[in-house]
Amino acid sequence: MTNLIEHYNRTRKKTEELCQPLNTEDYLPQAADFTSPPKWHLAHTTWFFEEMILKKVIQNYQTFDPTFSFLFNSYYNSLGERLERHKRGLISRPTVDYVYQYRNYVDAKMVVFLANKPSSEIEELIITGINHEQQHQELLLTDLKYTFSQNPSHPKYTAKPLVNTYNTSEGWLTMAEGIYEIGHIGNGFCFDNELGRHKVYQHGFSISKALVTNVDFIAFIERGGYKNAAFWLDEGWAWANTNNITKPLYWYKIDKDWFYYTLAGLEKIDGNAILSHISYYEAAAFAAFKNCRLPTEFEWEIAADKIHWGSRWEWTNSAYLPYPNFKIKAGALGEYNGKFMVNQMVLRGGSVATAEAHSRKTYRNFFHPQMQWQFSGIRLAK
Amino acid sequence: MTNLIEHYNRTRKKTEELCQPLNTEDYLPQAADFTSPPKWHLAHTTWFFEEMILKKVIQNYQTFDPTFSFLFNSYYNSLGERLERHKRGLISRPTVDYVYQYRNYVDAKMVVFLANKPSSEIEELIITGINHEQQHQELLLTDLKYTFSQNPSHPKYTAKPLVNTYNTSEGWLTMAEGIYEIGHIGNGFCFDNELGRHKVYQHGFSISKALVTNVDFIAFIERGGYKNAAFWLDEGWAWANTNNITKPLYWYKIDKDWFYYTLAGLEKIDGNAILSHISYYEAAAFAAFKNCRLPTEFEWEIAADKIHWGSRWEWTNSAYLPYPNFKIKAGALGEYNGKFMVNQMVLRGGSVATAEAHSRKTYRNFFHPQMQWQFSGIRLAK
Amino acid sequence: MTNLIEHYNRTRKKTEELCQPLNTEDYLPQAADFTSPPKWHLAHTTWFFEEMILKKVIQNYQTFDPTFSFLFNSYYNSLGERLERHKRGLISRPTVDYVYQYRNYVDAKMVVFLANKPSSEIEELIITGINHEQQHQELLLTDLKYTFSQNPSHPKYTAKPLVNTYNTSEGWLTMAEGIYEIGHIGNGFCFDNELGRHKVYQHGFSISKALVTNVDFIAFIERGGYKNAAFWLDEGWAWANTNNITKPLYWYKIDKDWFYYTLAGLEKIDGNAILSHISYYEAAAFAAFKNCRLPTEFEWEIAADKIHWGSRWEWTNSAYLPYPNFKIKAGALGEYNGKFMVNQMVLRGGSVATAEAHSRKTYRNFFHPQMQWQFSGIRLAK
Amino acid sequence: MTNLIEHYNRTRKKTEELCQPLNTEDYLPQAADFTSPPKWHLAHTTWFFEEMILKKVIQNYQTFDPTFSFLFNSYYNSLGERLERHKRGLISRPTVDYVYQYRNYVDAKMVVFLANKPSSEIEELIITGINHEQQHQELLLTDLKYTFSQNPSHPKYTAKPLVNTYNTSEGWLTMAEGIYEIGHIGNGFCFDNELGRHKVYQHGFSISKALVTNVDFIAFIERGGYKNAAFWLDEGWAWANTNNITKPLYWYKIDKDWFYYTLAGLEKIDGNAILSHISYYEAAAFAAFKNCRLPTEFEWEIAADKIHWGSRWEWTNSAYLPYPNFKIKAGALGEYNGKFMVNQMVLRGGSVATAEAHSRKTYRNFFHPQMQWQFSGIRLAK
Repeated sequence: MTNLIEHYNRTRKKTEELCQPLNTEDYLPQAADFTSPPKWHLAHTTWFFEEMILKKVIQNYQTFDPTFSFLFNSYYNSLGERLERHKRGLISRPTVDYVYQYRNYVDAKMVVFLANKPSSEIEELIITGINHEQQHQELLLTDLKYTFSQNPSHPKYTAKPLVNTYNTSEGWLTMAEGIYEIGHIGNGFCFDNELGRHKVYQHGFSISKALVTNVDFIAFIERGGYKNAAFWLDEGWAWANTNNITKPLYWYKIDKDWFYYTLAGLEKIDGNAILSHISYYEAAAFAAFKNCRLPTEFEWEIAADKIHWGSRWEWTNSAYLPYPNFKIKAGALGEYNGKFMVNQMVLRGGSVATAEAHSRKTYRNFFHPQMQWQFSGIRLAK
Repeated sequence: MTNLIEHYNRTRKKTEELCQPLNTEDYLPQAADFTSPPKWHLAHTTWFFEEMILKKVIQNYQTFDPTFSFLFNSYYNSLGERLERHKRGLISRPTVDYVYQYRNYVDAKMVVFLANKPSSEIEELIITGINHEQQHQELLLTDLKYTFSQNPSHPKYTAKPLVNTYNTSEGWLTMAEGIYEIGHIGNGFCFDNELGRHKVYQHGFSISKALVTNVDFIAFIERGGYKNAAFWLDEGWAWANTNNITKPLYWYKIDKDWFYYTLAGLEKIDGNAILSHISYYEAAAFAAFKNCRLPTEFEWEIAADKIHWGSRWEWTNSAYLPYPNFKIKAGALGEYNGKFMVNQMVLRGGSVATAEAHSRKTYRNFFHPQMQWQFSGIRLAK
Repeated sequence: MTNLIEHYNRTRKKTEELCQPLNTEDYLPQAADFTSPPKWHLAHTTWFFEEMILKKVIQNYQTFDPTFSFLFNSYYNSLGERLERHKRGLISRPTVDYVYQYRNYVDAKMVVFLANKPSSEIEELIITGINHEQQHQELLLTDLKYTFSQNPSHPKYTAKPLVNTYNTSEGWLTMAEGIYEIGHIGNGFCFDNELGRHKVYQHGFSISKALVTNVDFIAFIERGGYKNAAFWLDEGWAWANTNNITKPLYWYKIDKDWFYYTLAGLEKIDGNAILSHISYYEAAAFAAFKNCRLPTEFEWEIAADKIHWGSRWEWTNSAYLPYPNFKIKAGALGEYNGKFMVNQMVLRGGSVATAEAHSRKTYRNFFHPQMQWQFSGIRLAK
Repeated sequence: MTNLIEHYNRTRKKTEELCQPLNTEDYLPQAADFTSPPKWHLAHTTWFFEEMILKKVIQNYQTFDPTFSFLFNSYYNSLGERLERHKRGLISRPTVDYVYQYRNYVDAKMVVFLANKPSSEIEELIITGINHEQQHQELLLTDLKYTFSQNPSHPKYTAKPLVNTYNTSEGWLTMAEGIYEIGHIGNGFCFDNELGRHKVYQHGFSISKALVTNVDFIAFIERGGYKNAAFWLDEGWAWANTNNITKPLYWYKIDKDWFYYTLAGLEKIDGNAILSHISYYEAAAFAAFKNCRLPTEFEWEIAADKIHWGSRWEWTNSAYLPYPNFKIKAGALGEYNGKFMVNQMVLRGGSVATAEAHSRKTYRNFFHPQMQWQFSGIRLAK
């Protein structure tokens, strides 16, 4: 089990490394219902191991703190009541320090437990817990960026903007009509929503090798893209008007120049860098403006071996729905993915904030169409 | 063109016949943003012919009333400003009588115009207008039912409850794995969202020959279906709790008996009748309760020739998205369907309120998952 | 009792006369929670006599319709459940005709009853019912104006705008410091909130003989009155900004000219006419702009014999609170006034829409500070 | 100026002493729009001295941080834009430590400045700043209690509950009819809203020597006080029903016993202690239940020399309105009080959290009628 212990330790340590630039104060605020404070991410990922594994496998397991079961449950109805989501930033106690003690406590128990080869069923749970923590590493960064963006003093988290990544190829890739297979295959880890590998009949399509860049999107803005209903889905149009959306999240026009807030502070926009922080509504409107469309998640997966991806989550034109033969898992893990399969769109690929070795071509990320705070971008198809 | 004139006249007359049981007062109220008053339906369907056809084809066409272009536009951004949707019940003028004059005025112009063979392009527009009016015939009934249901005196519209229809077969139909074709074929009318006939690879499935009945659903209620999060999509669970949903729309429990409001007034529920007025959330929860699932729209269409359907709109597990090669039409008709392709689920089949000869197996109806006011029901698959 | 019968009949008839210009459709819509449809006013004023008098005084009284007790109760908790306020426009049944039958039925019973001299206690109730109906006559007009104003075709109710009335004197009236008496005196009718005549010590003040005119208020607008926080109460400033209020209710600027919607349709604003449809927030801001203040209700009452009033309800700087020795009446009438004594400001005077012989100098009208839909105006003090 | 320096230093130090039990994390959260985080209170009270005094009196004054003018302005429109109120808990930077540096920086400048006798005008400003800080000392505690109450682990701030204070006398004090003087007199500090000392004619009244206790209020609850509309103002009734209010803020019924959250954690309710955390709506309902009423603010001030007060803010039946001859101050201080004179009720007395030597009988506190988070209680009158 050395590998698993190492994998576990490396992941746990990585989360804490991500928090190193933070002041105690930065661990606290929750700037929107859809974000969580760093303190909460640190505790919740630990809660996952305590609740899903330690409580099950260790007889008379002594919880670190009896209130944590309530405080750090995210959305598992089968694991009891929980703190309302929008209150995650209101609980100043436990302190940050105490949360780190919680991590140490659980880690110590886990390492002892891992030293004795666990059953393959439990091993699978642990690997799920590791992948779960990797997901939260990304959320920790995107949530932090959102929180920091509320501060008019533009706090810096890193020295260089994560967001400045570039295309390495261009043009269109054309794929032939035919039957393809979709979904996870092999022994590696995947989530339940990737399973049920199945055939699809795919009509021929072309997909762009490059992602849309900032300069591409500035053209959309300057040619009235946000003001022309013809490009927009009806609910997208309502969303943009109600919320007075006239540019991507984090963008500012100062005099005649475009700036964006990055984790390295306010920066002049790099036109050649790949566009980020785009909602599905904006992605669909941009595609219409270009007389194109977004790829479906099947098209994306079929093309994935032949295109470069991984710096932006790419909105697809597929709703998040179960694959044929999708099975809800028994127990709490059954709530991990399946219950969110309505009103969300699938994103594929992975971003600059995605945990290393966590990206794979069958991975199905999903968000509501108005969400902008992920490192989300646009790839066109036709 | 005799056929088209007859078709036009019959459709227009049918709408007015549906209004015969109404008092003047019944034409007015709008009980929710998602419903419209009968007066508005009468005027808007007429506006469609005036705006889309007469204004285009008759030189120096004299509009019946210059304010109607604004008042009775539903959602066509390309046709100018319009009355806000939630204000449709607030405009007491034009009077009901004046709206009937409007219908007569437009009908007279249309009939004259139809007598001279229109171009095939215009003919297609007219047939779309007829189908549009048939859609509104159904909405007129479902909206009226919703409005009347707000009245504690349970007004009667018809002598017999529309809603009491029954299954004629039972058991499961099993379909084999393979490639099938989906989408409209042939010369008959269809909407743009049914076009783009294409192949799909379908894995084997079984679909119920019968729709879920009231007595089936009472079992779900009585076994705690509305109180067990495990059956529900996360947003469905939130919807039910926030809105205190514990039974289908229009149902009442009085002492120990179940009643429902029908267009024939308050009636004791007929257990054998087919369940109606169910949201997608409830449909999905019921399916989970039965250890089944809802069919996809493709499964439904593949099975459609072999099952009995037509008394309820059947929620499918498919999001409303474009078919491959979907084309947005030029002009205002481009806003008819395409711009709604997000956040809605497809329903198939047709209901007791659907216009005769308007149902077809490729028809894609769509509503938001919380909507209950259509005659919507549940068919299970596995 | 001839006088009382006549008084009753005259009042009842007057309400119906006010409805004569209406189409059936006009009786229905409710354009805001704070307004009611004409049909509802007709029925509710009748309900008052049935519920408060006939049910009490006639043995085995047969109600006209058993559902009306629920449908037309306004806010009397002690008289049972009631239709939610915002649903008054949704009940198409009872029809307008049936409501007129209700009025006839109750009137016939009342006239028979009145022919036999009622006890003085009951007589007082009847006089309260008459005054109640006179209050609703004014509301019927102001609510109708609000509803009609939602219609872009600017419906006409009367031939001439009610709102065009003028000042007949100008300058300031100065009143000396001293002890004055406030509150109703004598045998005439008054509401309970006017009783408890009491002494107040009044410091010297000056009050304007004229009300603010439209041209006065245009100066406020044009000199940035709506854009300068310094003139505004904090909640008024928030109200104006949140609701984008930049002019009085019903005003429009078309090109360079000011228009207002009146019950005679859209009219060019008469600059010399007295300003109307002003909220307390706007009144207070205007007063600050003029380096003045609004009078208190005591100042107003003290000055009332020496100034001309009656065409606008005049906002005072007094909150609606009980006089010393205010007594809540026993029974349902105890809910008439007292329970509203929080968060509202007192208006004094009476308006062009107030029932004749209903105005008196001790009358305390009251509305929330953001309300604009009454014929409300501004008198300055210093 | 030694006295003023001492007064300044003592006040500044006191604020920091109140924060001593806090962890860094406790300085951050904002649990409601109407509360502010400790960090914000520390910074805003400092901002007041920097913005209102140092910037005016020191030539070329170097601000501590240029972003603070925006971040820590509370509601002064005349001092420029500001952070939206509900975002006070979202700005993790400046850190708590940096805010303490800000305090030190400003204090050092202030002390130097104070050493040279300032003009009497500036001295008055400084005294206002001190009183302003004392107000925030109370808010710091009440806001903290509200924030901590959101935490299911019931954090402790002090060893003993502040809230357990007791009546020392009972019975009724009767005051005779006559002319009394109201408002501040003498040389001591007061706010502008206490000025304009003026005569009032007061009718005779009786006022309770004791405040309502917990056991008194439990009787109200147990006899259905929260369920009987007859006791309630209409908006109070709606407030209680909409928000499901069935007990004072911070109260819990666990099995058969009453508990409350205090700054010393969850405690069993002490029945003899004085009731606290009551809204005006609840106070008025309780008074009606006891067949009494609340005193007006004039009655309270007239009786103040003869009753014991100071442990609870006592709701009066007076709306917060200007006294005769109230003058809005020139400049930013004009926004201190006057612009809030609508929709709020006056409280008199002072509470266990009020700064020592800050209570005086002419002090007019004011809150909206639904507010419960102050140490507010009930004194009856009749």
